[in-house]
Amino acid sequence: MSSIFSKIVLGEIPCYKVAEDDNHVAFLDIFPMQKGHTLVIPKFEIDKIFDLSDDDYLALQRFTHKIAKAMEQAFECNRIGMMTVGLEVPHAHIHLIPIQSEHDMLLSNPKLSFTSEEFQQIAHSIQQFL
Amino acid sequence: MSSIFSKIVLGEIPCYKVAEDDNHVAFLDIFPMQKGHTLVIPKFEIDKIFDLSDDDYLALQRFTHKIAKAMEQAFECNRIGMMTVGLEVPHAHIHLIPIQSEHDMLLSNPKLSFTSEEFQQIAHSIQQFL
Repeated sequence: MSSIFSKIVLGEIPCYKVAEDDNHVAFLDIFPMQKGHTLVIPKFEIDKIFDLSDDDYLALQRFTHKIAKAMEQAFECNRIGMMTVGLEVPHAHIHLIPIQSEHDMLLSNPKLSFTSEEFQQIAHSIQQFL
Repeated sequence: MSSIFSKIVLGEIPCYKVAEDDNHVAFLDIFPMQKGHTLVIPKFEIDKIFDLSDDDYLALQRFTHKIAKAMEQAFECNRIGMMTVGLEVPHAHIHLIPIQSEHDMLLSNPKLSFTSEEFQQIAHSIQQFL
Protein backbone atom coordinates (compact mmCIF):
# COMPACT_ATOMS: atom_id res chain seq x y z
CA MET A 1 0.00 0.00 0.00
CA SER A 2 1.24 3.47 -0.86
CA SER A 3 2.32 5.70 2.00
CA ILE A 4 0.36 8.89 2.58
CA PHE A 5 3.40 10.70 1.17
CA SER A 6 3.36 8.63 -2.03
CA LYS A 7 -0.28 9.65 -2.41
CA ILE A 8 0.81 13.27 -2.07
CA VAL A 9 3.50 12.69 -4.71
CA LEU A 10 0.89 11.18 -7.03
CA GLY A 11 -1.54 14.04 -6.38
CA GLU A 12 -4.11 11.68 -4.84
CA ILE A 13 -3.94 13.67 -1.60
CA PRO A 14 -3.56 17.47 -1.78
CA CYS A 15 -0.73 19.31 -0.10
CA TYR A 16 0.60 22.82 0.26
CA LYS A 17 3.56 22.35 -2.06
CA VAL A 18 6.67 24.45 -1.53
CA ALA A 19 8.92 23.04 -4.26
CA GLU A 20 9.48 19.99 -6.41
CA ASP A 21 12.10 18.52 -8.70
CA ASP A 22 12.27 15.21 -10.57
CA ASN A 23 12.99 13.18 -7.45
CA HIS A 24 11.91 15.26 -4.44
CA VAL A 25 9.01 17.26 -3.05
CA ALA A 26 8.85 19.80 -0.23
CA PHE A 27 5.45 20.60 1.27
CA LEU A 28 4.08 22.11 4.47
CA ASP A 29 3.43 19.86 7.46
CA ILE A 30 -0.31 20.22 8.10
CA PHE A 31 0.34 19.68 11.82
CA PRO A 32 3.12 22.26 12.11
CA MET A 33 5.26 22.61 15.21
CA GLN A 34 6.10 26.15 14.07
CA LYS A 35 4.94 28.43 11.27
CA GLY A 36 6.72 27.32 8.10
CA HIS A 37 7.34 23.73 9.26
CA THR A 38 8.12 21.90 6.02
CA LEU A 39 8.63 18.26 5.08
CA VAL A 40 11.12 17.23 2.42
CA ILE A 41 10.78 13.76 0.88
CA PRO A 42 12.18 11.66 -1.93
CA LYS A 43 9.41 10.73 -4.40
CA PHE A 44 10.75 7.20 -4.26
CA GLU A 45 9.13 5.41 -1.30
CA ILE A 46 11.60 4.09 1.24
CA ASP A 47 11.04 3.74 4.97
CA LYS A 48 14.40 4.59 6.57
CA ILE A 49 16.28 7.62 5.30
CA PHE A 50 19.72 6.09 5.84
CA ASP A 51 18.73 3.12 3.66
CA LEU A 52 18.87 5.49 0.70
CA SER A 53 21.94 4.95 -1.47
CA ASP A 54 24.72 7.46 -0.93
CA ASP A 55 23.78 9.26 -4.18
CA ASP A 56 20.06 9.35 -3.41
CA TYR A 57 20.70 10.51 0.17
CA LEU A 58 22.94 13.32 -1.04
CA ALA A 59 20.48 14.37 -3.75
CA LEU A 60 17.78 14.60 -1.07
CA GLN A 61 20.10 16.64 1.16
CA ARG A 62 21.05 18.97 -1.70
CA PHE A 63 17.35 19.70 -2.26
CA THR A 64 16.84 20.09 1.52
CA HIS A 65 19.72 22.57 1.76
CA LYS A 66 18.09 24.77 -0.88
CA ILE A 67 14.70 24.72 0.85
CA ALA A 68 16.23 25.43 4.28
CA LYS A 69 18.12 28.46 2.99
CA ALA A 70 14.94 29.87 1.47
CA MET A 71 13.05 29.24 4.73
CA GLU A 72 15.73 31.08 6.69
CA GLN A 73 15.00 34.17 4.61
CA ALA A 74 11.23 33.72 4.65
CA PHE A 75 10.67 33.61 8.40
CA GLU A 76 11.77 35.59 11.41
CA CYS A 77 13.69 32.90 13.20
CA ASN A 78 17.04 32.26 14.76
CA ARG A 79 17.68 29.40 12.33
CA ILE A 80 16.16 26.34 10.67
CA GLY A 81 16.17 23.15 12.74
CA MET A 82 16.30 19.80 10.96
CA MET A 83 14.90 16.53 12.24
CA THR A 84 14.34 13.03 10.95
CA VAL A 85 12.44 10.63 13.16
CA GLY A 86 10.57 8.55 10.64
CA LEU A 87 8.28 6.52 12.86
CA GLU A 88 5.12 8.45 11.98
CA VAL A 89 4.99 7.65 8.25
CA PRO A 90 7.07 4.82 6.65
CA HIS A 91 8.37 7.10 3.90
CA ALA A 92 11.66 8.88 4.59
CA HIS A 93 11.16 12.58 5.34
CA ILE A 94 13.10 15.47 6.77
CA HIS A 95 11.42 18.06 8.99
CA LEU A 96 12.63 21.63 8.52
CA ILE A 97 11.42 23.89 11.32
CA PRO A 98 12.02 27.63 11.83
CA ILE A 99 13.10 27.96 15.47
CA GLN A 100 13.91 30.63 18.01
CA SER A 101 14.90 28.27 20.81
CA GLU A 102 15.62 24.62 21.46
CA HIS A 103 12.14 24.32 22.94
CA ASP A 104 10.62 24.95 19.50
CA MET A 105 11.95 21.54 18.38
CA LEU A 106 10.13 19.53 21.05
CA LEU A 107 8.01 16.88 19.37
CA SER A 108 5.65 17.06 22.33
CA ASN A 109 4.73 20.70 21.61
CA PRO A 110 1.11 21.37 20.70
CA LYS A 111 0.68 21.68 16.94
CA LEU A 112 -0.36 24.97 15.36
CA SER A 113 -3.35 25.35 13.11
CA PHE A 114 -3.76 27.57 10.07
CA THR A 115 -6.49 28.19 7.52
CA SER A 116 -6.02 26.96 3.98
CA GLU A 117 -5.35 30.54 2.90
CA GLU A 118 -2.70 30.97 5.58
CA PHE A 119 -0.98 27.71 4.56
CA GLN A 120 -0.92 28.94 0.97
CA GLN A 121 0.62 32.24 2.04
CA ILE A 122 3.26 30.41 4.09
CA ALA A 123 4.21 28.18 1.13
CA HIS A 124 4.35 31.23 -1.09
CA SER A 125 6.59 33.10 1.34
CA ILE A 126 9.19 30.30 1.04
CA GLN A 127 8.85 30.09 -2.75
CA GLN A 128 9.77 33.76 -3.04
CA PHE A 129 13.30 32.94 -1.93
CA LEU A 130 13.81 29.87 -4.10
CA MET B 1 37.14 32.38 20.79
CA SER B 2 37.14 28.76 19.65
CA SER B 3 33.97 26.78 20.16
CA ILE B 4 34.12 23.79 22.50
CA PHE B 5 33.91 21.63 19.36
CA SER B 6 36.90 23.37 17.77
CA LYS B 7 38.80 22.57 20.98
CA ILE B 8 37.78 18.94 20.53
CA VAL B 9 38.99 19.07 16.90
CA LEU B 10 42.32 20.49 18.07
CA GLY B 11 42.63 17.88 20.82
CA GLU B 12 42.55 20.54 23.54
CA ILE B 13 39.46 18.88 25.01
CA PRO B 14 39.20 15.09 25.00
CA CYS B 15 36.31 13.23 23.40
CA TYR B 16 35.17 9.70 22.74
CA LYS B 17 35.97 9.75 19.03
CA VAL B 18 33.99 7.51 16.71
CA ALA B 19 35.52 8.48 13.36
CA GLU B 20 37.39 11.24 11.61
CA ASP B 21 38.36 12.28 8.11
CA ASP B 22 40.17 15.35 6.80
CA ASN B 23 37.20 17.66 7.30
CA HIS B 24 34.85 15.99 9.79
CA VAL B 25 34.76 14.34 13.20
CA ALA B 26 32.15 12.10 14.84
CA PHE B 27 32.26 11.70 18.61
CA LEU B 28 29.92 10.63 21.39
CA ASP B 29 27.68 13.22 23.03
CA ILE B 30 28.73 13.16 26.69
CA PHE B 31 25.16 14.04 27.68
CA PRO B 32 23.51 11.33 25.59
CA MET B 33 19.75 11.16 25.07
CA GLN B 34 20.18 7.47 24.19
CA LYS B 35 23.05 4.99 24.25
CA GLY B 36 25.18 5.65 21.16
CA HIS B 37 24.09 9.30 20.73
CA THR B 38 26.75 10.72 18.43
CA LEU B 39 27.59 14.21 17.18
CA VAL B 40 28.95 14.79 13.69
CA ILE B 41 30.69 18.09 12.97
CA PRO B 42 32.72 19.80 10.27
CA LYS B 43 36.21 20.64 11.56
CA PHE B 44 35.72 24.06 10.04
CA GLU B 45 33.92 26.26 12.61
CA ILE B 46 30.64 27.68 11.36
CA ASP B 47 27.58 28.45 13.46
CA LYS B 48 24.60 27.55 11.26
CA ILE B 49 24.70 24.29 9.33
CA PHE B 50 22.79 25.65 6.34
CA ASP B 51 25.37 28.43 5.96
CA LEU B 52 27.82 25.76 4.79
CA SER B 53 28.42 25.87 1.04
CA ASP B 54 26.55 23.24 -0.95
CA ASP B 55 29.74 21.19 -1.34
CA ASP B 56 30.70 21.42 2.34
CA TYR B 57 27.15 20.61 3.45
CA LEU B 58 27.04 17.54 1.21
CA ALA B 59 30.49 16.37 2.34
CA LEU B 60 29.28 16.60 5.94
CA GLN B 61 26.13 14.66 5.05
CA ARG B 62 28.11 11.98 3.20
CA PHE B 63 30.21 11.44 6.34
CA THR B 64 27.03 11.49 8.48
CA HIS B 65 25.37 8.87 6.28
CA LYS B 66 28.31 6.52 6.81
CA ILE B 67 28.27 6.95 10.59
CA ALA B 68 24.49 6.52 10.80
CA LYS B 69 24.60 3.24 8.86
CA ALA B 70 27.28 1.90 11.18
CA MET B 71 25.24 2.99 14.23
CA GLU B 72 22.18 1.18 12.89
CA GLN B 73 24.17 -2.04 12.95
CA ALA B 74 25.84 -1.34 16.28
CA PHE B 75 22.75 -0.81 18.42
CA GLU B 76 19.42 -2.54 18.95
CA CYS B 77 17.15 0.19 17.73
CA ASN B 78 14.31 0.76 15.33
CA ARG B 79 16.38 3.32 13.41
CA ILE B 80 18.74 6.29 13.74
CA GLY B 81 17.10 9.66 14.30
CA MET B 82 18.84 12.79 13.05
CA MET B 83 18.53 16.26 14.51
CA THR B 84 20.16 19.63 14.08
CA VAL B 85 19.19 22.37 16.50
CA GLY B 86 22.40 24.28 16.87
CA LEU B 87 21.56 26.69 19.67
CA GLU B 88 23.64 24.88 22.31
CA VAL B 89 27.08 25.31 20.71
CA PRO B 90 27.78 27.80 17.88
CA HIS B 91 29.50 25.18 15.73
CA ALA B 92 27.31 23.27 13.28
CA HIS B 93 26.63 19.72 14.44
CA ILE B 94 24.28 16.86 13.64
CA HIS B 95 22.87 14.64 16.38
CA LEU B 96 22.53 10.96 15.47
CA ILE B 97 20.41 9.09 18.00
CA PRO B 98 19.46 5.40 18.08
CA ILE B 99 15.71 5.36 18.74
CA GLN B 100 12.91 2.93 19.39
CA SER B 101 10.12 5.50 19.48
CA GLU B 102 9.44 9.14 18.74
CA HIS B 103 9.69 9.82 22.47
CA ASP B 104 13.39 8.93 22.38
CA MET B 105 14.02 12.11 20.35
CA LEU B 106 12.59 14.51 22.94
CA LEU B 107 15.21 17.10 23.82
CA SER B 108 13.58 17.38 27.24
CA ASN B 109 14.40 13.76 28.13
CA PRO B 110 16.78 13.24 31.04
CA LYS B 111 20.30 12.57 29.81
CA LEU B 112 21.97 9.22 30.41
CA SER B 113 25.29 8.80 32.13
CA PHE B 114 28.04 6.31 31.41
CA THR B 115 31.48 5.60 32.80
CA SER B 116 34.52 6.43 30.70
CA GLU B 117 34.95 2.72 30.01
CA GLU B 118 31.36 2.40 28.85
CA PHE B 119 31.73 5.42 26.54
CA GLN B 120 34.83 3.83 25.03
CA GLN B 121 32.98 0.56 24.47
CA ILE B 122 30.08 2.41 22.83
CA ALA B 123 32.45 4.25 20.46
CA HIS B 124 34.19 0.97 19.68
CA SER B 125 30.89 -0.77 18.92
CA ILE B 126 30.19 1.81 16.19
CA GLN B 127 33.73 1.64 14.83
CA GLN B 128 33.36 -2.09 14.25
CA PHE B 129 30.85 -1.39 11.49
CA LEU B 130 32.77 1.41 9.77
